[in-house]
Order: sequence, then C-alpha cells, then structure tokens
Amino acid sequence: MLGFTSLKEKKPMTYLPQDMACPIDSRYYGTNPEFLKRLKPYVSEEGYVRYQAKVEVALAQVLVERKIAPPTLAEELEKAAQTISVEDVYAEERRIGHNIRALVNCLKKHVSERAQPFIHLCATSNDITDTAMALRLKELTRDILLPDLIQLENVLLGLASDHAETIQMGRTHGQHAIPITFGYAMANYVARVGNRIEQIETARVNLRGQLSGAVGAYNALSLLVPDNTVGFERDVLTKLGLRPVDTQVSTQVIHPEYVTDLVHAVTSAFSVLANIADDIRQLHRSEISEVHERYDAERVGSSTMPHKRNPSNFEFVKSMWKAMMPRMMTLYMDQISEHQRDLTNSASARFITELFTAFIYAIHRLTDALKRLEVDDMAMSAQLTGTEFEAILAEPLYILLTAQGHPDGYGGARKVVDQARTTGEPISKLMWADDTLAPYLKNLSAKQRELFENPQRYIGAAIQQTHATCKEWTKRCQQLTKQLNNESKASQ
Amino acid sequence: MLGFTSLKEKKPMTYLPQDMACPIDSRYYGTNPEFLKRLKPYVSEEGYVRYQAKVEVALAQVLVERKIAPPTLAEELEKAAQTISVEDVYAEERRIGHNIRALVNCLKKHVSERAQPFIHLCATSNDITDTAMALRLKELTRDILLPDLIQLENVLLGLASDHAETIQMGRTHGQHAIPITFGYAMANYVARVGNRIEQIETARVNLRGQLSGAVGAYNALSLLVPDNTVGFERDVLTKLGLRPVDTQVSTQVIHPEYVTDLVHAVTSAFSVLANIADDIRQLHRSEISEVHERYDAERVGSSTMPHKRNPSNFEFVKSMWKAMMPRMMTLYMDQISEHQRDLTNSASARFITELFTAFIYAIHRLTDALKRLEVDDMAMSAQLTGTEFEAILAEPLYILLTAQGHPDGYGGARKVVDQARTTGEPISKLMWADDTLAPYLKNLSAKQRELFENPQRYIGAAIQQTHATCKEWTKRCQQLTKQLNNESKASQ
Amino acid sequence: MLGFTSLKEKKPMTYLPQDMACPIDSRYYGTNPEFLKRLKPYVSEEGYVRYQAKVEVALAQVLVERKIAPPTLAEELEKAAQTISVEDVYAEERRIGHNIRALVNCLKKHVSERAQPFIHLCATSNDITDTAMALRLKELTRDILLPDLIQLENVLLGLASDHAETIQMGRTHGQHAIPITFGYAMANYVARVGNRIEQIETARVNLRGQLSGAVGAYNALSLLVPDNTVGFERDVLTKLGLRPVDTQVSTQVIHPEYVTDLVHAVTSAFSVLANIADDIRQLHRSEISEVHERYDAERVGSSTMPHKRNPSNFEFVKSMWKAMMPRMMTLYMDQISEHQRDLTNSASARFITELFTAFIYAIHRLTDALKRLEVDDMAMSAQLTGTEFEAILAEPLYILLTAQGHPDGYGGARKVVDQARTTGEPISKLMWADDTLAPYLKNLSAKQRELFENPQRYIGAAIQQTHATCKEWTKRCQQLTKQLNNESKASQ
Amino acid sequence: MLGFTSLKEKKPMTYLPQDMACPIDSRYYGTNPEFLKRLKPYVSEEGYVRYQAKVEVALAQVLVERKIAPPTLAEELEKAAQTISVEDVYAEERRIGHNIRALVNCLKKHVSERAQPFIHLCATSNDITDTAMALRLKELTRDILLPDLIQLENVLLGLASDHAETIQMGRTHGQHAIPITFGYAMANYVARVGNRIEQIETARVNLRGQLSGAVGAYNALSLLVPDNTVGFERDVLTKLGLRPVDTQVSTQVIHPEYVTDLVHAVTSAFSVLANIADDIRQLHRSEISEVHERYDAERVGSSTMPHKRNPSNFEFVKSMWKAMMPRMMTLYMDQISEHQRDLTNSASARFITELFTAFIYAIHRLTDALKRLEVDDMAMSAQLTGTEFEAILAEPLYILLTAQGHPDGYGGARKVVDQARTTGEPISKLMWADDTLAPYLKNLSAKQRELFENPQRYIGAAIQQTHATCKEWTKRCQQLTKQLNNESKASQ
Repeated sequence: MLGFTSLKEKKPMTYLPQDMACPIDSRYYGTNPEFLKRLKPYVSEEGYVRYQAKVEVALAQVLVERKIAPPTLAEELEKAAQTISVEDVYAEERRIGHNIRALVNCLKKHVSERAQPFIHLCATSNDITDTAMALRLKELTRDILLPDLIQLENVLLGLASDHAETIQMGRTHGQHAIPITFGYAMANYVARVGNRIEQIETARVNLRGQLSGAVGAYNALSLLVPDNTVGFERDVLTKLGLRPVDTQVSTQVIHPEYVTDLVHAVTSAFSVLANIADDIRQLHRSEISEVHERYDAERVGSSTMPHKRNPSNFEFVKSMWKAMMPRMMTLYMDQISEHQRDLTNSASARFITELFTAFIYAIHRLTDALKRLEVDDMAMSAQLTGTEFEAILAEPLYILLTAQGHPDGYGGARKVVDQARTTGEPISKLMWADDTLAPYLKNLSAKQRELFENPQRYIGAAIQQTHATCKEWTKRCQQLTKQLNNESKASQ
Repeated sequence: MLGFTSLKEKKPMTYLPQDMACPIDSRYYGTNPEFLKRLKPYVSEEGYVRYQAKVEVALAQVLVERKIAPPTLAEELEKAAQTISVEDVYAEERRIGHNIRALVNCLKKHVSERAQPFIHLCATSNDITDTAMALRLKELTRDILLPDLIQLENVLLGLASDHAETIQMGRTHGQHAIPITFGYAMANYVARVGNRIEQIETARVNLRGQLSGAVGAYNALSLLVPDNTVGFERDVLTKLGLRPVDTQVSTQVIHPEYVTDLVHAVTSAFSVLANIADDIRQLHRSEISEVHERYDAERVGSSTMPHKRNPSNFEFVKSMWKAMMPRMMTLYMDQISEHQRDLTNSASARFITELFTAFIYAIHRLTDALKRLEVDDMAMSAQLTGTEFEAILAEPLYILLTAQGHPDGYGGARKVVDQARTTGEPISKLMWADDTLAPYLKNLSAKQRELFENPQRYIGAAIQQTHATCKEWTKRCQQLTKQLNNESKASQ
Repeated sequence: MLGFTSLKEKKPMTYLPQDMACPIDSRYYGTNPEFLKRLKPYVSEEGYVRYQAKVEVALAQVLVERKIAPPTLAEELEKAAQTISVEDVYAEERRIGHNIRALVNCLKKHVSERAQPFIHLCATSNDITDTAMALRLKELTRDILLPDLIQLENVLLGLASDHAETIQMGRTHGQHAIPITFGYAMANYVARVGNRIEQIETARVNLRGQLSGAVGAYNALSLLVPDNTVGFERDVLTKLGLRPVDTQVSTQVIHPEYVTDLVHAVTSAFSVLANIADDIRQLHRSEISEVHERYDAERVGSSTMPHKRNPSNFEFVKSMWKAMMPRMMTLYMDQISEHQRDLTNSASARFITELFTAFIYAIHRLTDALKRLEVDDMAMSAQLTGTEFEAILAEPLYILLTAQGHPDGYGGARKVVDQARTTGEPISKLMWADDTLAPYLKNLSAKQRELFENPQRYIGAAIQQTHATCKEWTKRCQQLTKQLNNESKASQ
Repeated sequence: MLGFTSLKEKKPMTYLPQDMACPIDSRYYGTNPEFLKRLKPYVSEEGYVRYQAKVEVALAQVLVERKIAPPTLAEELEKAAQTISVEDVYAEERRIGHNIRALVNCLKKHVSERAQPFIHLCATSNDITDTAMALRLKELTRDILLPDLIQLENVLLGLASDHAETIQMGRTHGQHAIPITFGYAMANYVARVGNRIEQIETARVNLRGQLSGAVGAYNALSLLVPDNTVGFERDVLTKLGLRPVDTQVSTQVIHPEYVTDLVHAVTSAFSVLANIADDIRQLHRSEISEVHERYDAERVGSSTMPHKRNPSNFEFVKSMWKAMMPRMMTLYMDQISEHQRDLTNSASARFITELFTAFIYAIHRLTDALKRLEVDDMAMSAQLTGTEFEAILAEPLYILLTAQGHPDGYGGARKVVDQARTTGEPISKLMWADDTLAPYLKNLSAKQRELFENPQRYIGAAIQQTHATCKEWTKRCQQLTKQLNNESKASQ
C-alpha cells in the first residue's frame, strides 16, 4: 500500500536522485540516465504497472475469444493500457488502498461503458501481479541481464584467448604452487560464468503464470467455462509467452519455487562474479602487481595519498555481492504462505527487481573494468623465475621417479628439495647429481628432460584446455544470443 | 562511484517515485511527502553529504584552535557547508570519480584562497565518511527511530492498560491452554519492545567517530601535533558529540563492531515487531476473530471478493521484516576488511540507512494499525466459555490435589479429565463427586473453590503484572524521551 | 585437521549419543539405530573415508589400464580399501595432520611394495576429497533422500486422492475466502514436492568429479599422458559414474556451482516441507481443529496440562527448517576461493552432509505424522455452513451478473452483500428478491442456479485437478523410482 | 523427541567419533578427549539434562521454604539429581515422547513416596528447559568461552607488545599505503577482541530465567502463593544465580532477546577472529611472507607438493566462521513465536551450543597458531625500503607544505611524485631541488626533516598507542578474569 492511510490525499513530488533513501536509486541506477532508460521498463514501479496492464489485456482477449465479453473489449483495453498514466494509477491507489483495483478503475475510464464490467473478470488481483512479475523477470532477463552477462563472458573469452600462453604462477592457500597460464585462469571463469548463464536461462524459461482465481481452484472461471477452466488459463498465458504450472493446481499464488530458482541462479552467478573480482583485486596487490586497471587521467585514487591506484571497481563488485547475496533468505522464507495464501510476501517480493538491478549494475562495472585490464606478463613471469631453488620441480620429479619405478619417488624428491633448501642450489642441478636417482632419470624422454630445464613449461594442459574452452563457450553464447533475440522479436 | 566511467558527463534528471527501482523509494518513502521530509536529512544521499560537510567543519575548527590553519577557516567553512549544492558535489564526483575529494573541491570554491589548502588537512576520506555515518545513524536514531518506536510502545501501553482485565484464552502450540488477559499479552510486548528500545539506545550512544588518517596510526596528524594526535582526534569528535574508540587504535576504518551492534539491536527489534504483527494477524482469523483493524469506508479488501477484510498492515510488517532481517549477514561480512582496509564494505554499508528507513516505515504502519485495533472482548470470552468440559481446570485440579497431599495429583486430575471427555460433564462437577479426591478437596480455601466455579478467573498474576509493567515502562519511556530531547536540543 | 596439535597422541574413545555436542548426533541420528545404519555409509566421517578410498581405486584402475602402474595395483588396492580400518586412518591423521596422506599411508600398508608408490599418483588431495564428496552426495541422494522424499510424496498423494471431494474452506490472509477441497490443498503440495523432487534429481545427476591435479591444469598427468590428460580424467570419473566439468577447465577445486545447485534444490524443498508443516499445524488450532495427528496412548502432551495434544511433529519440521535454511549462505560464500584455491571452504563444506541428514530426518518426521493424520471432514464442512449470510456467494453473484450483461455486477453484488450483512438474511434469498438483478439472474443455467442453493459446490475445478495431479505425479514418481533403482543396481 | 515413534523401543549404542554425522562431533570435539571433557558438562545433551535437574532442585528448595512441599524434598531431590543416569532419562523419553516428563519420572524413582508428587510442581516444561539453557550458556561462557577468549587476547597482547616497534607497511585496497608497526596492527585486534569480550560479558550477565508456568502468567503458582508469585520465581532464580525478566511479564518462553543478544555478541566476535585469520593468512602469501606458522616436523603440507607450507589453521578459522555466522538468522526467526508460544524453536535452539562449541574450538585453533607465529621483521622492513621512489613520502610532503603555507600543497607534492615516477629518483631528493617548494621546506623542524631521510619513521603514533592499548586491555582482562573466577567459585 502506498504511504500511510492518514496521508493518502497528498500528491507525489518529483525528485533528484540524491533525495532517495536507497543507494541503487541515489547512486547507481538513478544517476545514470542511459542505464536507467534501459532498465526502467522492467524494474521500475511504472514498468510493473505496465506489465500488469499487459496481463489484463491478455485476459480480455481470451474473454472475447470465448464470447464471454463483448468483441470490442480486447482492442479497447489494449489502447487503454497504452493511454493510462501511471500517475493516475498511483493517485487512485492512494484513494482506495488497493493497487490492482486502482489499475482496473483507471483502465475502465478509457473503455466503453459496455466493455467496462468485463475488465479483470474472473481474475483475482494476484493472478495479475504474480503473472506480471513472472513476465517482467522473464523479459528483463532475456533483454538485459543475459545479454549483459554474455558481454562479460565475451570480455573473459578475450582475456582467456589473448593470454592462453601467458605463464602465471598457480597459487593455492596463497602459496606458490605450480604454474598455469593467466588465460587458463580466465578460461576457468569463462566456464563458470557460462555455466551460470545456462542455469539462469533454464530458470528463466521455466517461469510460470497463473489465472486460477482467489483460492487457485478456478472457482470463478468454472462459472463461465465449466469444462475448460485450465484451457482458458493456458490460452491467456500463451498470449504472454508463459505456461501454467504442471497439472495446473495451485493456491492464490504461483508456486514460488520457479522464481526462487531464478533468484538462486542469479545469486550463485553473483558469487562467481565476486570470485573474479576478488582474484583480480588480489592480483593488484603491490607485492604481486600482475594486473592493473587502466585509470582515466582525472581520476583520484585517494584524498590524501596521491600515489595510490585502487582496484575499486573490483572492490565494488564484491561489496555489492555482500549486500545482495543474503537476500536469498527472503526468497526461502517467502516460499511459506499459509493455506491458500497470506500476504506476508507482498512487500518482500518487491525487492527482487532491486536485486536484479544491483546484479546488472555489477556486471557493467566488472565488464568495464576488465576491458581496461592491463596484464603485466613480465611481472607474472618474474614470479616464476624468482622462486627459490625451483621448488615447483618437486612435483614432477616425484611423479617421474615413481613412473620410472623408483620405490619411493616422493621420498626421493623430498631429499633433493631438502638439499636445495639447504644449499640454495637449484633442483634441476641437484637431481642429476644424486646417484640413487640417476638410474631412473636416465630413462626420461627428451620432452620430460626439457621440462627440468624450463620449469615454467610445467603447465600441463593449460593452453589446450584454454583454447577448447574458448571455442566451446563462444559457440554456446552465440547460439543463446540468437535464441534470445528471436524470442524478443517474436514477443513484440 | 556514481554511474559508469563512460557516462560521466551526463546530468542527472528529476524523477517521479514510480521511476525508481527500489520499493522503498517507489512505494513507501518516495510517495509519502511528510515521511520523506522527516527522514531525508538523515537517510538520503543529500543528507549524507551534509553530514560529511559537518565533519569537515569540526576538523577545521580544531585546526584553527591548534593554530595550524588560518583563524578564518572555521567560520568560512561553516558557511560554505551551508552554501554548497549537493548537485554540484554530484557533478564533481562524476568528473573525478571520488566522492570526498569532490566534496572538498566544492567546499574550496566557497572559501578564501588562503583557507583553501587547509580543508580536509590530515584527514583521509574514510575519516569523514565513517564519522559522518556514525553521526547520522546516531541522530537519525535519536530524532526519528527511537521517538517513533516509543510512540509504538505508548500504543501498546494503551492496549495493555485498557485490556488488563479482558480475559483471553492463552494458546500454546496453537492449542487452547489456560487463560490470560489480552492486556497481559500486550504487556508482554510492552516489555519486549521496551527492552529493545533500551538496547538500541545503548548501541546508539556507543557509536564512535575517527580521525586517524590513511592507515589509522595518526601518521599525518603526528607531523603537526606530534605529542597530541589522540587529543586532536578527541577534540574533533567532541564537537560532533562523538567519542573515539577506546585506547584510540585503529585502521583506516572505525571498528565495525559499533555499527554492527546497532544494526543488531534494530534487527532484533524488528523481529519483535514481526512477532506482534504475526500474533495480531492470527487473531484476525475468521475462526478466531478476536480483534479487527478498523477500515476506512473506501478501502477495498479484495479485487474479486467484496466481503474480505484483510489484516494487510500486519502482513506488511512481517513481509518487510523478511526483506530486511537477512541483511544482518552483510554487517557480519563487513566486519572483515583486509589489513588497514579494503573497500569491499563501501557499497554494502550504504544500504544500512535503507534498512533503517524500512524499519521506521514498518513502525509507522504497525503503530497506525494498532491504533485502529478493535478488541472484541465478547469473542475472547466466548473462546473460554466454549471449551469442552472445562479442560482448563485440569491444571489447577492437579496442582491443588498435590498441594493438599494427594499422592498422585496428576493421575487424579487425569482421571477426572478422562471422565469429563467421555461423559461431556464439566470437570467442576465431576471432581466433587469423586470419593478419592473429596478428602483433599474439602480443605481448599474459599478463593480456591471459587476458581472452579469461574474457570476464566484462572489467570494467575496477569492483571497485577500488566499494571506493574505499564507503570514501569511508562516511566522509563518518559525518562528516555526527556534525555533524547535534551541531547537533540544541545546538538543544535 | 583432527583435534589440536598438542593433543595428537591421544586415542579416541567410544561415546554415547548424549555425550555429543550436536543435536543431530545426540538426539536424532545418533539415537535411532535403524536411521543411523541407513545413513552412516554416506554421511558419517567413516563413510566419507570409504568414498575417498573408492576414488583412489578408480584412479589406480586407470593407471593400470594406461600401463603406468603395475598390473596388480588395481586389485590390490580394491582389497586394501575394504581392509583398512577408519580408526587407523584417524590415528595416522592425528600423527601427520593431513587426512588424505593419512589414507594413502594406510592403504600402502596393505599392498605390495611394488604397488605402493603408485597409489594416489598424479592426484592432489582435493581431487580425492571433492570427487568423493560429489559421489557420496550423488549416492546419498539416489539411495536415501529421493526415495524417502518420494515416500512422503506418496503419502501426500494418498491424502489428496482420499480427500479429493472433502470440501474445505479456502483461506487467504487468514480469512475465509471461497471453498476448495482438502484433497486439492494436498494436491498443491503434491505438485510442489514433485517439482522439487525433479529439481533435486536434475542437480544430482549434474554433480561432477575431477582429477586435474594441484592447480587444476593437469600438470602432473601431462607428464605421463601428455596427449590425453582430459581422457584420463574422464576414464577415472566414468568408473565412478561421474563426469568432469564441461570443457575440463578448473582450479584445484571442482566448480562449486554444482554442489551449490543441489543444496539449493534441497533447501527449497525443505521450505516446501516447512509450508506443509505450517499449514497442518494451523489446521490443528483449537478453533479450527480440522485435522489431528493420532497419538499413541502413552505419549505425554504437556508436563503440566494433561488435556493438551500438540502438533509437535509439524512444529519440529518448521524448527529444523529454521536451523538449516540459513546454511545456504555458507554455500554461496564457499563459491569464492582465491586463485587456484584457498582452503577456507574445507571445514564449512563438511556441514553439507549434516544438512542432508537433518533434511532426511525431517522428511521422516513429516511422513510419519502425515500417515497418522486424521481428517475431520465434519469440522471442515462446519466451517462452510457456519459462514455468516453465505458470504462466499458474493463472488459468483458478481461474476454471473457481469457475464449476463449487468452494467455493474460488482456493485450489484456488493449491494446484496451489504443487505445480507445488515439483515442477517442469506445472499441466496436476497439476490432473487432484488428487482434490478432479476432480469439478469433469470438467464442463469440450471447448474449455475444450483450453486446458489449449495454454496459449498463453489469449488471450481478442484476435484478434476486433484485427480489429474495425482495421476501425473504417481506416474512421474514411479518412473523416477525405476531409474534410481537401475542406477543403484548398476553401481554395485 | 528422540528418534521416531516406530523405533522407540530400540536401545542406543555406543559410537566412535567417525560414526557421527556432524563434523563437530566426528572431527573436532569428538576426537579430542581433553577438549570434550572440558566442554561436555555444558554442551552435551547429558550436560543439558543435568542442568535441567539443577533447576528442578532449585524449584524444590523454594517449595520447601514456602512450606508447600515436605521438608525433605529439597535434599532428596538434590541427591536424586546426582544419582540418575542420563541413559535412563533417554530410555524413558523414548517410551513416553516427552523429555522433561521423562526427567521428572526418573527423578521420582529416587525420592520418597511422599516427596514424589511435589517434584516439578507449578512448573511447565519450558520453565525448566529455558532456564536450564540460560544457566548452561551463562556458565559455559563464564567457565570456558570467556577464559579461552581472554587467552587468545593475551597472545595478541604478546604479539602487539613484542612487535610494537616492528615497522610494517600499512596496506589499504591491497596497495602499499604508509607505514605502521606490526604491533600496532595486532593492538588493533587487541582492542576489537577486547571490546567483544566485554560485549559477550554484558550479554552473559543479562541472561534471564523463568518460572511462570504454562502461559507465563503464573497461573499455577497463583494457586499456592497468590500474593507472591513473582517473589517465588525470583527466589528460585536467585538460587541459580539468575534474574527474571524486568517487570516479570512473559509467555511460556523467556523473552528470546537475551539469548539472541548473546549469540550476536559471539557471532560478531567470530567475525573479528575471521578478520585476524584472513589478515594473517594473507601475510603468509609467497609474495609477502612476513609471517609463518611454525610447523611440526612430521606435518604434511600437501599430498603431492612436498614444498608447500599452508596457513591451514587460519583458513580453518575463516571456514568455520562461514559455517557458523549465518546461523544468527535462526536466532532472529526464533524470536517469533505465536501467542503464548509455538514450539517451532525447539529443535533449532538446540544448535546454539553447537555454535558455541565451534566458536570455542576456533578460538583454540587460532590461539595455538598465533602462539607459533614467526614474525619476519626483515621481510616486513624489506617491503618498505623496496618501495619505488619513496612513494610513502607523498603524504607527509603534502601535509607539511600546506602547514607551512604553500597555497597548493597537494599539487606541489603531486608534481614531485610525478617527477619521481618518471625519473626513478627518490622523492626525498627531488623535493629539496624544487625551487617552488624550497621556501616552505626550509622552515621544517629537525624532526620533520629527519622523517624524509627515514621514511619508515612515518608511523605516527603507532608505538605509543600500541603500548597504551596493551596496558589498558591487560588491566581489563585481569579484572574480568578475577570477576569470572569469583562468580565461578561462588556458584559451586
């Protein structure tokens, strides 16, 4: 309900972003006209009302098809839906305290007297709001969220491909382990983001609509189409590109699991972005300094330390994740609704589009920052050549000794490592000098020997798998983009 | 950072509430001019900037007192702080990408050339933002949140007092148990809300400020006031009504525990409100119908069922709690910051005032609805007289038999209960007819006997404790209100 | 790591359940020998070690197939895996502080000297633990969780089918709305639980394994099978019934999204169970009393009120949901791991099987209680016939008036409702007496007229959709059961 | 309820830790006999039953004092409480399905026939369980949690004190900023942990008990002590060292806010520990390597890379925090209980002691690891001297230029920084060579000049504040330890 009862006669004013109470509005969405313009049709309250009107139109069309309503209703209502002002709907809601009845009242004013009584007939408010919510989440995800996430994926694909052979130290527990390539590290994110893209798409196309009345049993519809209530619902939803729940059984609300699955897919995708942000942020550390975000000349790093250059976009992504991730709990709580429904999910569900807005905004910040990422392959390489006594050779030495039949390859390797640590001499030298190892080492292939001369070549299948990953995900993203575009065109 | 780098030249526009992406802005705060006007100085981005300017002024005053800055700085800056437009600060931030530096640049334009270099001297951005955050939370809580919560407490006190003697069935596990009074049920909430008011006040006065520079070790200050860095910080904070952390040791950020404690106090208070809302909501059930929220005549309950009257304000409070409660997780995550700080708490901390706004809004909705609560004492009484076979006498029978020396009072009472259940005769009749019980029952006092004739009198100390509770919490709330007012006046 | 370093020489003792610190162990799993026996192979630490040994065996088999290890290794190790005592593995871990190395050391003692060095060759510890975790979650879900959830589904199917025609008042906002059948309410849960069963199965078969070494780039494997590292991994996993991640790119850990998806599916299923529990709990209310859980004679309801019968099993399910649901946050946090991995997900991931145990236990409690549910169709029916002035006819009156061309059907119906409320006369009488409505009502069909004589027939498609739902989900559950059994047999 | 109804006749068995389903039991608490022995009296189910018996004894004592029960009851019951076996209580609960009635039945068997009926008289089960829970949390926190946390504080105090003057680079955004000392970084944690110790103590002493009967209105007590029900409750609680809630008004449950506050204090303390763990973990990075945990010789770092030394104890603390922190949500949800109570908090509240066990275990792991921390002051120092062109001098140059009256100190400093970055020459050289700066620099004090020769001296008040912090918190911890010991002795 808008505002308080006691204030219902007051008119809304216009605002500047800095008047708002929510950071999304006052700093991110509200201060960026292009971003706002793209998202507003889906995430704003204005957009929501327009989606609700769309559902009323689809209902009217089927009422006409079934000859329940006068034939002009559908066309009249379609025009009315384009004509009404959302300000008027707000004003009416302030007057009567019910948002869907307010919408219906406003629509009525723009159709003929004969058509008026048939608007909203057989629907309960929640048929409209839940179906409109499903529809706007479906189209927001199709038209903005997924295309933008695919754009991020493309930037990751570029980094993976460009740096497929850029040797980097692999790190576990924050410790130097054995090498990979920077492209491989990025390819890992290509695969994880790609997987989330597909999970989001799966959840998106699985969203459902509903038109089953006050307690979900098609009571009202059964008065007019007694033999085909579920067919009626199906027809309305088909016009909107939606399906009903399987076997068409429900309460006043659509089974909440479908939206919950989508928000989970988005939340878990946000965690992957947070992981990327954290990794890149850590690689910016003064002591590592393997990557840098290119700054504009005018940008200020610190208000007091002129020499600082902070990975603030990456910090931002992590921070927004911390603000949004716990909201998944709200979705789980909202799966519980007493009997045929209680309304304790009404306000809380309104925050879902805020979460989507925050996620899309974070995608942009991350994409933008990754595009400006400078990779310092010299710094990466230096980490490898700088390792004490070629410690990374310990593993291959152990593996190859064992493969050659040494009865205790692990022990043999450790002996050499201890020697290296004590003397400071490189493993690649000491290993050949050890009599107990020599008999096994002499059987090594040329390629295997070469490795000990160039420890940085110990990167396994990093290069091949980077290329394989890039190829596969480029293809999948192109296919998905085509599908989304087709659906988008078809729905216009 | 406002918007994206690539869009930085764009100007912000003005908006209607329905353009916004966040439900708080588009439906609650943004559509209610009086509510917005009261909260805006604290919760809006505009308000935040003004608080930051206040901190800069306090710093300037001490720089002048210590004869570091020219004597006119303090006064000039105080005027500048009132003169600057937040729109200009936004524009500058879009240009340079740093919010505090933007504020400083704007302030500079309004002071003399001589004073300019001394603005912000020795401070790091976060000294300003963290201290301003502490200050606005402290004053928002003092001027709005606590007074409003005390108003809710007063409505609860009224309900408790008015219905101290209104008999109601006590319910555990959703089952009729033994009686209380409705006033006693409300007194229980008086005590719980009262306790949270005090917890919030404790956390509020414990908020801390900081002025310790880029890594928290007073490095910059030590150049100018080498022997009294901590005294300098203390002086600045005293001017703002704040204290530094104990023993004045820190990083770039104020120990996050102080704000975390306040948000916990608020979140746990929100849970108490949600409990009230749930209880009242359940008492509205068609089958119970012991209370009703008085509706305005024009209000629509359902878009399709004209007979419905829903407890929607109480549902709203529960729903908003579900949206806000999980955000406490963000606070716990934000307690972790790498080394002398990482900035991954920057965006997330901006949502704290959104949470406060939602909580204050929920207080209003609950207060408003409770004021219009009609208590149906006849319906309450009917639940008691309607119980089968006076089942609620089972407990007193067991207790009194035991006290009178019956070797198995519990068994004795159960026997009578079973008889009553079988025969449908009331316990108060059957108990006197039982030969094995008679010897014990004959010693009962007149008052004890009377109880068996009027089972609804079995309400224990409900009335006395209701009155005791009302008296005590009325007093405590009055004292606190006086304190808050005094502090508020002193700070102007 | 087990225990503390300083205590490593101490031996573990045997315990009674009540010695344990965790309620699952001390009250639910640990006190129920049959339940424990069924779950232990999957959820206990002992079970985990056995799964780890299975992964080592699969690795050994491929090392033999590729002629890297001596031909006897596979068989020797398979026997060793069955021979070793988990107590010995624990003792060894206490000695050396590394669980997988401890397992390998113990396995070594049971194979020939020649085979010893080849155990675990080319694997990193996490290849074993992550793959073993995926495997045990996959088999636990297949062998216990899903079959048990299907059993719950069958009980719901029974309730839905048995009560397909049992009229019950539909309730929204806790208010009487319009009727459904109790079977329809249960069918709604059949569909929701069924949907979660399928979501869990989807996530289950999508679990992945890994064998890609210390930093995920197949570094070690590339020494021995340079041209077919990914084929080697695929072969090992195939032996376990698992697949690698798409395009085989990774870090030291399997992409966490697969397990996260499964835990989401389980958590959201738990919410559906909590919704069922809440609904049934509310229907137990003294004022509603439409259902009752049959109690055993000896069961005590209250320690002080002999007459109480509490819906404690349903309360339990809700309570356990509250304890487990927030743990999903841990999964989202564990999606973030620095670079090629940090180990901050090691202890936290161990709690996943605790969550599964709690969920399975809650399934049992709910299934058991629903089996003993007594449905009081008289009480349900009484709620309908007892409604004041047939308020539920308001909706059909409005709809039919409109359909018959009344220019303001909603207003017409409301007028009659107001009259009914004032006079106490039933709607079905007043409607026919109204001259302005008569012209429209006279055209009603016989079936439509009949409805006004029997308001409880206003149940829409409740009966048909209940039967359709039961038929469909019975079929789907049977198919899935067959699939799970087949996979289970194939894996033995 | 233990196990399932259908299995109630089964006897519990004894177990090995590895049989258990919960990691706390199977790997941490259950495998460490000394740790288990210390915690078991508080956190095990056995301990819980013993605390419940204590509450029954206190009740009996007051029943005797008030001459309601026979004079021998108190003594008899005290003995009985020591005599009963928790196994018998478990067996009885399996028989009757009610834990407190089971305890009462077992106690009865050990007292005289005359005393039997008076056990538990006037109490409801939840009076016993809630009060016992408050008591065991209070004593667990007093006897184990706080002393252990103080021990951690002492280790931090040692590190702070020992390294008060060990220069370390301060880091913000992961970037080198300006210097501090390692002791100062530790002193910051001394203050934060100390603050949490005090917050925990505040919440601990604020825990409350209750003895107000089935619906909280002292109904049963009012039968026997009509004029002094609240005095009776107060007397029982005083014997246990507890207080009732203010103004003694309640439902069947103690106001949940008191335990919620304690769990918040513990959770927020856990976050501080996680922050310490994260920082130390990061300082272990190969590229930073400023600290190392000393390993035992036998300890294995990696199963495949013999050269690795991982900060696994610090990773463990962070990981356990991730598992435990979200559980705070359960506490907030458990603040909501319908009417005079529903039982949906029964199972969930049992996990609180699991959380405390995990926290205490994490304290031990962190304390133990910090004790073995080797601080490499050479490595720390190297980070400073190795910085390019003395970038850390940029800030003091800007501050001092401004203080000396330079009209644009920030710009002047930036010019020198840019020169230094281009030429590679140190700032301390370039600044003196700049003609525009010279007039201001010549007025610097000797101490200020010295700083530019020794940039590592730019540590502000780090040393003084470290010492001040150590002194203050040593004192406070000693005082608190004394208080806790006194209370502990008094309660025996």
